This record gives sequence, structure tokens and C-alpha cells, in this order.
Amino acid sequence: MQSFIDVQKDSHFPIQNLPFGVFSTAGKDSARVGVAIGDYIVDLSVLQSAGVLSGVSGLPAGVFDQPSLNAFMGLGKSVWSATRRSIQELLSKDEPRLRDDADLRQRGLIAQKDATMHLPITIGDYTDFYCSKEHATNVGIMFRGKDNALQSNWLHIPVGYHGRASSVVPSGTPIRRPCGQRLAGKDQPPVFSKCLKLDYELEMGWIVGTGNQLGSPISTAEAKDHIFGMVMLNDWSARDIQAWEYVPLGPFLGKNFGTTISNWVVTLDALEPFLVDGPSQNPTPLKYLQESSKTAYDINLEVSIKASPSAEFETITKSNIKYMYWSITQQLAHHTINGCNMRTGDLGGTGTLSGPTKESFGSLLELSWNGTQEIVLKDGTKRQFLEDGDEVNMTGYCQSSEGWRIGFGECVGKIEPALI
Amino acid sequence: MQSFIDVQKDSHFPIQNLPFGVFSTAGKDSARVGVAIGDYIVDLSVLQSAGVLSGVSGLPAGVFDQPSLNAFMGLGKSVWSATRRSIQELLSKDEPRLRDDADLRQRGLIAQKDATMHLPITIGDYTDFYCSKEHATNVGIMFRGKDNALQSNWLHIPVGYHGRASSVVPSGTPIRRPCGQRLAGKDQPPVFSKCLKLDYELEMGWIVGTGNQLGSPISTAEAKDHIFGMVMLNDWSARDIQAWEYVPLGPFLGKNFGTTISNWVVTLDALEPFLVDGPSQNPTPLKYLQESSKTAYDINLEVSIKASPSAEFETITKSNIKYMYWSITQQLAHHTINGCNMRTGDLGGTGTLSGPTKESFGSLLELSWNGTQEIVLKDGTKRQFLEDGDEVNMTGYCQSSEGWRIGFGECVGKIEPALI
Repeated sequence: MQSFIDVQKDSHFPIQNLPFGVFSTAGKDSARVGVAIGDYIVDLSVLQSAGVLSGVSGLPAGVFDQPSLNAFMGLGKSVWSATRRSIQELLSKDEPRLRDDADLRQRGLIAQKDATMHLPITIGDYTDFYCSKEHATNVGIMFRGKDNALQSNWLHIPVGYHGRASSVVPSGTPIRRPCGQRLAGKDQPPVFSKCLKLDYELEMGWIVGTGNQLGSPISTAEAKDHIFGMVMLNDWSARDIQAWEYVPLGPFLGKNFGTTISNWVVTLDALEPFLVDGPSQNPTPLKYLQESSKTAYDINLEVSIKASPSAEFETITKSNIKYMYWSITQQLAHHTINGCNMRTGDLGGTGTLSGPTKESFGSLLELSWNGTQEIVLKDGTKRQFLEDGDEVNMTGYCQSSEGWRIGFGECVGKIEPALI
Repeated sequence: MQSFIDVQKDSHFPIQNLPFGVFSTAGKDSARVGVAIGDYIVDLSVLQSAGVLSGVSGLPAGVFDQPSLNAFMGLGKSVWSATRRSIQELLSKDEPRLRDDADLRQRGLIAQKDATMHLPITIGDYTDFYCSKEHATNVGIMFRGKDNALQSNWLHIPVGYHGRASSVVPSGTPIRRPCGQRLAGKDQPPVFSKCLKLDYELEMGWIVGTGNQLGSPISTAEAKDHIFGMVMLNDWSARDIQAWEYVPLGPFLGKNFGTTISNWVVTLDALEPFLVDGPSQNPTPLKYLQESSKTAYDINLEVSIKASPSAEFETITKSNIKYMYWSITQQLAHHTINGCNMRTGDLGGTGTLSGPTKESFGSLLELSWNGTQEIVLKDGTKRQFLEDGDEVNMTGYCQSSEGWRIGFGECVGKIEPALI
């Protein structure tokens, strides 16, 4: 499949992808829904008004003329899929409707460099999981020693906790270094200061398209049809604040000062060709967590850092979500097994996606082994945790054997100094 | 102060209170904003349309013709206070505008028995704290012994965690007994079953009226002007699910199957006469948590249970929020000290409000000492945890020396059987 729009070979956004996002432009500042192709955004509100999406049934007028994907996502899986297929057809090389209509092209295709991207979803609740065995093991060894690395529930439950929805921000939003309580030393009282152990966590997020009624669980088999798509997610973490506060109710101010997601939501339809077998699960999970088809995805993940004052991003982690122990469908089934209700726009985070080797560790906590080792960059700059002015970018892509990539674009944030 | 509307002496809703809620009626099923007085609801959308609230500046047309309080709450403290004063004046004995207008009374005063109450707020994020020293100590003794009852951070931090906003429901909504993983016994693998240790938690909730920008904390001095009002809150808890899942990231499925709040939001203005000194705090909190004025409230709290198949509610707990160690303004200041942003409609829970004596313990976990003791009701019925069909009601009121009460109405829920 090829488009009449030129797409570079390593672009994240070929016609095979078509991720959804929300954007505005200088000429029309109301935010609206678009899909990315190559260096362009296709303005779906324009296409729908022009009538070229009329082949999709169940698409209400104005559904793309909105500042979030929620109205569209609420329509359900069959509408998402039909819409994407219709756009794919419209953008394909041999289809003249958009290709040969100069006026519609002019109005409906916007250069990404001329657009401002917005948070693509209105998030009701955000839940963060802890589903990489490698990450949980690393953290466990650091804080409890090798013999007690994994807690006793970890191999039975996709462990998760509620995060903060209000502070989820789109790629590009600066992150202010938080202040808070931390321990100044063993047997010392806590002090108030700026965070000294500021970190990132390489995660992916999944977005609920359609939810469930309170009291009625979603099964693993049904889960895939409830998830609209995925994003890159940076779960910024203040390790010193977190370490002092988290007993016994879990992370709170160490996390809720900011979470960055990528601007483009890649649909599960686009990821479907990259389904693979996940890690084998031993012990066998309880029945409500069992799955009968492939539910892991082969997505290459990278973290790069532009360590102030350097002008260059440097890749410091290469990982893959295929290593993740509990699948996103198991996460959703577990989340609802007690009857908890999901709503359109709810966000699930996978937890830090570390892989088996040091090069694949998804946080500075792991790369610097809680600050005991230095990470030395190419220009000699050293890091244990993030400094003011540092920028972190996370990205991911599936590599097809035909050369094209299904990618997520960037998920970037820059650290601003603390208020004190 | 007296109203021309008859209000019984022990009513929760005299003219001194005027709590806000959202209701609909058979005659007009669109939900709208009202205030309670005696056995009536004053329909504010009708009053505003009739022009009798025109003395309040900054009140946009239609702000009460909405299915939540959020638009009104977003207007800020001065508008909340002016609106309440204006309604108070309108309802007072010697004010003829409503009293003598039979048509306006007919349209604007609805009997509470003829109305359906709705969730009064659209909740962005819900955070639950753990701020009763008596409760934290009880739980600590049960699970860690007397010498390590309070964790080392407890006297320094208002410990809290993120809850689930989607499953917060209004008083009267049935609660389905959740299913999930629990341990069947020591050194046994977990099993899937219905919850066997279903509990309530007596809490109060505070509601954010106006929020803050990401990165900019709210001080303790400012906090009171950001909080619109308070509600009763039942943090339903599945103790067996919670015990297995909560390490290391905190409570999740043991809590998020349902949280009930009262239908009426009592404003901080109405509670102001009942401000008292809270418990002394030792060690002295860090500066950002210090307060210079009274911030505890003297509110009598009660839990009653209608234990199936009984037809009567019986009071099993009498407590008071004045015992709470960390004030609601300290909770809000702590929550934002790292820059976390609040939005209109966010909900904070206080944590279980146990008092110093057994009669004041705010959960069955404490009353039955984790199921080791039986609670014997008047008719001989015994409980350790909740059975199917049980109903729990929580209420609270301030008692004035003149005889009237500022109350919260009911916060009730009935347990439905599990799906299995």
C-alpha cells in the first residue's frame, strides 16, 4: 500500500499507520482531530465536511471538530476501523478524490510544522501498572536484595495503582522540578527541598475507547475491542520524594507532578501485524487472566537525552515492549474484574519497560543503579539523575519486513528549575 | 435567622445550611442545581431565570441549569458566598419576594421526596488520605504490632494516594460485592473468589472549587478559598483483596469498585461557625504544612447499619472529624506542594475518621479487630464484615447552641450479591 503523499522510508507515519491526534493551526485556532501521514496532518473535520468520509456509517456530523478524540472513540471499534480504512483508501496512490482535488488538499492537508499539537484525549482516570518483570526485579534487588526481588503477588497479579489524570501533558510540555519532603539521611528528620533524584520512566500507555458499566467486568477476550490505541508515556519520577512517602499507600507526590504522553495515538489496528507471543507465564495465571491468542507487541523503544548544555540527543536506552510480562489486555481485564468501570479516554500505563540487558533499562534509577554508578555520555557529560535543562525523548516503532515503520513520533519534555 | 419555610428542629437543612446538590424531577428530567432547605429543594435554575438572584454579580445565565455543580464552583469563592447569602435572604421569614409569590414558590420549591438526586460534581481526580491518627494506629497495631503501629512518615506527611474517580457514586446507589484474588491461607497460592471481608470506611470528602496551574502550589493559607465544601464519604473496602494486592504500590481493586458520597455538598461558609482547634501536632510540621488559624471542624459523625434481614438501621459508630490529625487545608497544601494541579470538581477523602474510643471506630475492620471479634446488634444479629443485603448509612452534623444543625443528609448504600 502506498500513498500519493510522499513518505520517507524511516517516517513513523506511513499510510499503514494513520495515528490519531488533536491539533490547531494559526489560521484556525479551534483544536480538531487529524491523522498523521508523513510530514502532514490530514484534517478529518475538513474531510468529513467535504463528504469524503460519508462511506463510514455511524459517524455523526462534527465528531472530528472537537478538542479531543473522546467523542470519536466512544463510537466503538467497528467505527474506528471503518474510519481508518476509509482514510487509508482516500490517501492511497490510485484514489483520485483527494489526490486530484487541489482545493480539498489545500484545506485538508496541513504541514505538521505549522500545527500545534494538543493532549489527544480527555482523561477520566489514569492507572499505572508495573508489568515488566525485568524492571520489578531490578527495583526489588536494589531495595530488598536478590533473594526477595519480586514481591509474592507479582507473578499472580498485574500490579497497578491509580495515577493522577490532571497532570498528564502532551509531548513538548516543560516539566518543573518538584519540591517536597525527603529524608536528609538515615535517622534524620525529613527536610523540605527540591527533588535531587529526578528520573524518567520509559512506558507505553493504552487508551480506553469504550468502557463498561460499574459492576460488569471486561474479559481478556473482550479487552482488545475496548482499547482504542497506544501512546508513548514518560512517567516522570521524583525518587527521593517517592522513597519517603510511599509506605503504605503507594507513590503519590513522587509521581503526580507530571506525566508526558506522545501526541499521536497509534490504533491497535495499525499494531495488529506486529503481534507476537509474550513471555511464558509461570505459574499459570488464574483463569480470568488467561489468554488464547497473541497479545504482546513487537515495538522497538528508545530513550534519548539531550543533557544540558549539549545540543544533541543521545540514545541511552533501547528496549522493547515484547518483553512485558503482563499484556495490556490482561491489565484491562484485571482492572475490571472487581467491577471497576472504565470510561472513554481512560489511560493505562504499562510501567517501566525494561528489557533483559543493561542497555534496555528504562529508567535512570536502573541505569545508575540508584545513583551508585555514573552514566557517561559521548561528550563526557555524566548523569545519575536528571539536571535542570535536560530534555528526554521517548519513541517507539514497529519495523515491517517491507521497510515501513509504524511509529509513535516523539514524547519529549524538558526539565525546568524548581521554584526554590 | 429563620425561614418562612417550616424546618424541623433536628433537620440537617435549616436556613443556616443551604447545601448544594443536583436533582431532577418527573416533570422535568434534566438535572439541575438546587439547595436543600427543610424537606424542600430550592430550584436555583428557576430562581435565576425569575431574576431574583440578579443581585449576585458574576453569575452567568444558565449556570444552575447544568447536571453538575462544576460550572458554579469554577466561579470562585466570592461568587459562592454571595450566592448563598442571596438565597439565605430570599428564604428568610421577612423577605416577601419568594414568600409571597405563589407561582414562583410553586415552580421553585420542590419536595425532596419528589426529586431524584444525582452525583453533585463531575470529578476529575479523586485522592484519598489517611489522616486519622487513631485509625492509622489501629490498623498499624493489627498488622505490625503495637511498637511499630505508625509508619515513620506518618507524623510528617498527610499520607494519601490516588483513588478512582469513575466509581464514585451518589448516595443510594447499590454496591455489588466485588470478586478478585485473595490468599486462601498462609503459603497457599491465591484463589479467585468473591470478597469475604467487605467493609465500609467512615470518611468525609472535600471538593475543590477552584484549582491551580500545574507547577504552582496552593499554600495552607490559600487552601480554604479553593475548597467549595464537604460531603460524607463511604470508602467501601474489600479487605481480603486489598491485603493481597497492596504491596508495594498501594490499594487498587480493594477500593475502586465503589465509593459513595452524600448528595448534598455543605459549603465551608456553613461550617465556619464550627471551626475548632485540631489535635496538637508533634513534631511540628515542616513550614509548608503549618497553619495559623483554626482548621478543624466539630462535626458529629455516625455510621448506622441495617443488617439484612432487619428492617431497622442501628447506629454502630459515633465519631467526630475534630479528632483528625491533618486538616483538610494541610491535605490540599501537601497535595500541591510538588506542583500537582487541582481542577474544579476534584475530590479529596480524609481517610477513615476513627476517634479515641472503640465506639468511635470508623470501619468494621477496627470494630471486629480484623474479624477476631463479633459485633452484636440489638436483635442479636452478628457481624464481622458486611453481608449481602446489608445497608450502611453515614451521616454528620454540627450542633449549634441555638438548637439548629448543619447536616449532610444521608450517604447510604446496599450490598448486592457478587456475580459469582
